[in-house]
Amino acid sequence: MNTWLKIASNSDFSIYNLPFGIFSTSKNKPKIGTRIGDFVIDLEQLRKLGLLQIPHNIFNQSSLNPFIGLGKKRTNNVRLQIQKWLCEDNSPLKKHFDHVFHKIENIKMHLPVKIGDYTDFYSSIEHATNAGKIFRPDNPLFPNWKHIPIAYHGRASSIVISGTPIHRPKGQFKPADASSPVFGPTKEMDFELEIGAIIGKNSSHGESINISESEDYVFGLVLFNDWSARDIQRWETLPLGPFLGKNFASSISPWVVTMESLSPFRVESPTQDPAPLPYLKVDGKRNFDINLEVKLGNNIISETNFKQMYWSIAQQISHHTINGCNLKIGDLLASGTISGSEPNSYGSMLELSWGGKNPIKLKNGETRTYLKDGDEVIISGFCKKNEIRVGFGEVSGRILPAIS
Amino acid sequence: MNTWLKIASNSDFSIYNLPFGIFSTSKNKPKIGTRIGDFVIDLEQLRKLGLLQIPHNIFNQSSLNPFIGLGKKRTNNVRLQIQKWLCEDNSPLKKHFDHVFHKIENIKMHLPVKIGDYTDFYSSIEHATNAGKIFRPDNPLFPNWKHIPIAYHGRASSIVISGTPIHRPKGQFKPADASSPVFGPTKEMDFELEIGAIIGKNSSHGESINISESEDYVFGLVLFNDWSARDIQRWETLPLGPFLGKNFASSISPWVVTMESLSPFRVESPTQDPAPLPYLKVDGKRNFDINLEVKLGNNIISETNFKQMYWSIAQQISHHTINGCNLKIGDLLASGTISGSEPNSYGSMLELSWGGKNPIKLKNGETRTYLKDGDEVIISGFCKKNEIRVGFGEVSGRILPAIS
Repeated sequence: MNTWLKIASNSDFSIYNLPFGIFSTSKNKPKIGTRIGDFVIDLEQLRKLGLLQIPHNIFNQSSLNPFIGLGKKRTNNVRLQIQKWLCEDNSPLKKHFDHVFHKIENIKMHLPVKIGDYTDFYSSIEHATNAGKIFRPDNPLFPNWKHIPIAYHGRASSIVISGTPIHRPKGQFKPADASSPVFGPTKEMDFELEIGAIIGKNSSHGESINISESEDYVFGLVLFNDWSARDIQRWETLPLGPFLGKNFASSISPWVVTMESLSPFRVESPTQDPAPLPYLKVDGKRNFDINLEVKLGNNIISETNFKQMYWSIAQQISHHTINGCNLKIGDLLASGTISGSEPNSYGSMLELSWGGKNPIKLKNGETRTYLKDGDEVIISGFCKKNEIRVGFGEVSGRILPAIS
Repeated sequence: MNTWLKIASNSDFSIYNLPFGIFSTSKNKPKIGTRIGDFVIDLEQLRKLGLLQIPHNIFNQSSLNPFIGLGKKRTNNVRLQIQKWLCEDNSPLKKHFDHVFHKIENIKMHLPVKIGDYTDFYSSIEHATNAGKIFRPDNPLFPNWKHIPIAYHGRASSIVISGTPIHRPKGQFKPADASSPVFGPTKEMDFELEIGAIIGKNSSHGESINISESEDYVFGLVLFNDWSARDIQRWETLPLGPFLGKNFASSISPWVVTMESLSPFRVESPTQDPAPLPYLKVDGKRNFDINLEVKLGNNIISETNFKQMYWSIAQQISHHTINGCNLKIGDLLASGTISGSEPNSYGSMLELSWGGKNPIKLKNGETRTYLKDGDEVIISGFCKKNEIRVGFGEVSGRILPAIS
């Protein structure tokens, strides 16, 4: 496909992508747009011009939820129509260019969806094994791990848009040599490299989603950073799992990349041994080849890929609903930390510094075990196959000192 | 106080109560009402008659959230105004009786709030010790328990109104004698007797709520049954805590009993030893004397009280926000299972049958370890001091067979 718009050849937002997000300008309240190159296309404006046949009060919203609720056929038709116009010389987009295109530097992005429930999985075998080795050297992977896409519920209220600064959380933790817990700002501030699936269809309470249909319930994917305070987490986690060590903030990338635009990048899932129970068995290409990178300031500290995840999104959804738990449009299912097998492919400081034992070196001569105040973490991701590139942009956040 | 309305002396919904909830009739969509005796008072109707100075689109809603958002002063003024009218002989409520009173048998109740995030605490020392003894005889109470109001995030989407039948969930679990997990309907279906606090005020992301102000963030309390599937929970729970063993359903009572109406029933909290960290230290009467009862059909299987909870709601809120996690209007903070020290005061089948080892006897000669299909669990609760009675009504649910 060729578009008449000039787009950098390495842009994440190629003609093949056209993700959806919520933007505002100095003149306009938040509404729905799509992105191409360094421009945002104002979908509400296109509707007002009579060019998109979408009910009013869909695009003019501060979340994608009502739009997603129209169903994949209609939402993807919008994407395909824009794509067509961007390739046609005689195009209404060209004609109305000044009314519907905004330069990316003139807009502000917002949370793309109103998130009802947020679930965090734990689906990378490398991460689960690493975390296990660090915390429980004798028993790294629990016996249930290869049978269950392990997950827990997270906090939806504290999910913020990329770029939001994150205050170092305070809390209680117990130093190894102390007899009782102490209070203060976390000393083990961490990030977690994840990908989040945005649910695109409601399921009924009581209903189990068959695995062959489970991807129909995903609208698209985002990058996700599940900030963590390891010392707080370690002290609180028994017996009910992580709570304050996680729920102070998570960051999300602004553009939801649709399942349709990711379909060229599907790959086979890793072999699962032992075979999972029948409700988790699935054929076809259920994983996605997404290159991922984490920068700490201008240092690339991790490079990995989403394709080797042990449990696929399809399996996560069938597991989540096998007991009748209902999913709602806008729910977020995050992958859990994505780590590769090499030390430079780990998706958290916990793993990169091996529990704080092996500091990593930065270009400026400093070292890090966990994050310092002022550190900025930037996660980016893209897919590439032949000349087709579809990317996520980035999710970033800078650590601010604890509020006193 | 004396009202001109005839109310049974043992009614939970006395002149001192006046809780808020969402009701509908065969003619009207869901809207806000209060309850007195066996009547629901239609607040939207009172507003329309010009008797309550409340903005339109507050009472005429399917959740209490916008009403709660008016703030405690205004919401309690509505309650006090109704209370006054119910005591005055020459009252507009009497004059407009047929327009504003609905008999309880003619209305249907709905979920009272739109729940954003749901957190489940673990604040009964008796329950935590019992559960610990059953699962880990050597280590019943973890070292963190007396320092932290332990909690985890639950699922908001599957919270249902009292009376909703609950399908037995399916899932995987691992019988003690099996080498790998099996799939099927849970064999260990359980209830959990809890009380839930409905958050009444937004906090800011990054803000920690000082414990002296933390109760300002509670609108009122409800009864709560956190249905559980123990076999599913046991197999999945390491290392991230409960997930599918809990998130298939929780049930909530329809009337939110306000903090103001509960204030006569405040009692001192139990002594905490060791003393908690300063951010969790609080003076005054922070616990509530609420009598609780669980019936399985017509068998009373547990009688206990909310007053002995080790961690108070005030402490739960300060802990929840100490790391900057934000609370939102309509969030639900549940207490965790409420158990007393005697075997007939335990708040779950897990404890009542001691992990399935000691079946309990029913009046009809049957026994139970966990719940059978067809069993109905009815939790009720009330406060009583001198002639003042303020109650919650009940939260009930019947177990239906698993969906095949």
